Amino acid sequence: MSRVVVDVMPKPEILDPQGKAITGSLARLGFDGLSVRQGKRFEIEVDGAITDERLAQIHEAAEKLLANTVIEAFAVRVEED
Amino acid sequence: MSRVVVDVMPKPEILDPQGKAITGSLARLGFDGLSVRQGKRFEIEVDGAITDERLAQIHEAAEKLLANTVIEAFAVRVEED
Repeated sequence: MSRVVVDVMPKPEILDPQGKAITGSLARLGFDGLSVRQGKRFEIEVDGAITDERLAQIHEAAEKLLANTVIEAFAVRVEED
Repeated sequence: MSRVVVDVMPKPEILDPQGKAITGSLARLGFDGLSVRQGKRFEIEVDGAITDERLAQIHEAAEKLLANTVIEAFAVRVEED
């Protein structure tokens, strides 16, 4: 089994209310000087080897299903064990 | 500004209904042989340098606020640009 990770984050120009709320909570807990943005992480276990076709397929899946590309950017990468 | 990333994932022994739903949707869309688990990714911009104290602080913040350590595991890492 090989693993591919897809990271999905709100685009920089998009407001991130979740991240803002967390940043505020951290400050109230005494954790100062930290600014947080929240996104999603998908760990994908792939049957068989990770070929270029497989990665292209996962890229397409990320674009269609995992990320809303109007407001989110995503990155696909192979995770080394 | 330096960036630290905190990845939060459901523990392996915990069911992940979101991930299961995505796995099913992918199969229906024709993306076979992929098994997905969904977690969260926090990008933290840190004022000033990333020292060992800073990383310990972020570790504590992740434990207190970002992850529910009963059901989730987290990893803290410095992101190189």
